[in-house]
Amino acid sequence: MTRFACKNAAMTVSAKGAQARRGRPGYDLDSLLAVVVTVFNERGYDGTSMEDLSAKLGIGKSSIYHHVDGKEDLLRMSLDRALDALFAVTEEPATTAGPAIDRLEQLVHRSVEVLIAELPYVTLLVRVRGNTPVELRALARRREFDRLVGDLVQEAAEQGDLRTDVDPAVISRLLFGTVNSLTEWYRPRRGISPDEIAAAVVKVAFGGLRTTS
Amino acid sequence: MTRFACKNAAMTVSAKGAQARRGRPGYDLDSLLAVVVTVFNERGYDGTSMEDLSAKLGIGKSSIYHHVDGKEDLLRMSLDRALDALFAVTEEPATTAGPAIDRLEQLVHRSVEVLIAELPYVTLLVRVRGNTPVELRALARRREFDRLVGDLVQEAAEQGDLRTDVDPAVISRLLFGTVNSLTEWYRPRRGISPDEIAAAVVKVAFGGLRTTS
Repeated sequence: MTRFACKNAAMTVSAKGAQARRGRPGYDLDSLLAVVVTVFNERGYDGTSMEDLSAKLGIGKSSIYHHVDGKEDLLRMSLDRALDALFAVTEEPATTAGPAIDRLEQLVHRSVEVLIAELPYVTLLVRVRGNTPVELRALARRREFDRLVGDLVQEAAEQGDLRTDVDPAVISRLLFGTVNSLTEWYRPRRGISPDEIAAAVVKVAFGGLRTTS
Repeated sequence: MTRFACKNAAMTVSAKGAQARRGRPGYDLDSLLAVVVTVFNERGYDGTSMEDLSAKLGIGKSSIYHHVDGKEDLLRMSLDRALDALFAVTEEPATTAGPAIDRLEQLVHRSVEVLIAELPYVTLLVRVRGNTPVELRALARRREFDRLVGDLVQEAAEQGDLRTDVDPAVISRLLFGTVNSLTEWYRPRRGISPDEIAAAVVKVAFGGLRTTS
């Protein structure tokens, strides 16, 4: 607890006292992270202080430090949650066996489902532009994911299953640009299931929009 | 110049003196805005102070106030530049006459070209989430643009030119999600012309990716 100046330590103790009196339940790491990621998305990571998190969580900073080493640790865990879920998709049977075009389609479909299931975490991920070690590592992992997508697009092109009049590199950017754009507009309340949205993305991207040409 | 505290006014005068001595050329509003929008994109609007802008421009704050009333004025002009260019597209002959599907396709094509021509301004626009009057007005204009797109998608669907197995509202989100995602990855140095990128977006979105189904 040497992290606190005396003044803050005193405040923390009194906050914890108040909290205990009101019987507010504690957080496990998951439920803590669920609140933290929302604050990061609302205020931006740089614009969020441990004081902000403490206020939003309604617990003292020492209670947060019980779970993590600090703000950057919370960022790392939030970003890893999104990245781990996305990389897990690349190891599923449907994305690792069969013609490349089908694996690519499946990768897009499942990525949309992951994006929706982990919406605040993926939203945080796609907005990362910073220069802290945690952010640079997340950007490197994103590039690794993009490379996997790029390889799959290239393979599908080589197998003759992809239109040849658009650069495969552009196709792979457009595909995941479309997927990632969901973080900007998809809200669960719209009443469309994750599977329906994923199917819509796949239909529009792979099948096209026009009924005539 | 009553905007400055005495201390700052003195600093500004001395900065202007230094500037005049080095013979640094002045800015017109366009070239000023071109630098400002870059700083807004790098640091975020909230994270940018007039001092930051002054340092980046290499001119005193009073020289900035010569052009504008303050930071929010700079934001308004930057966002209007993007919005005016996008709305101008909706009034071009190719987006106002003919079957809705063709007008929609043309709207997507021209929006990509505008996005590339005004890349930093559109980038700033698509990242706006704030609550200042200027930001709220920009969000309202974006919604108006989205409504125009939504109406065109609806019309194309009614004319039987659009696939019917995806909700038109989702189609219109996906279309401009794809277009706007270019602000995240398109860089002029990639050696692909704006027209080629626009054509690629149209081909992928309207024609689909697969050569087989």
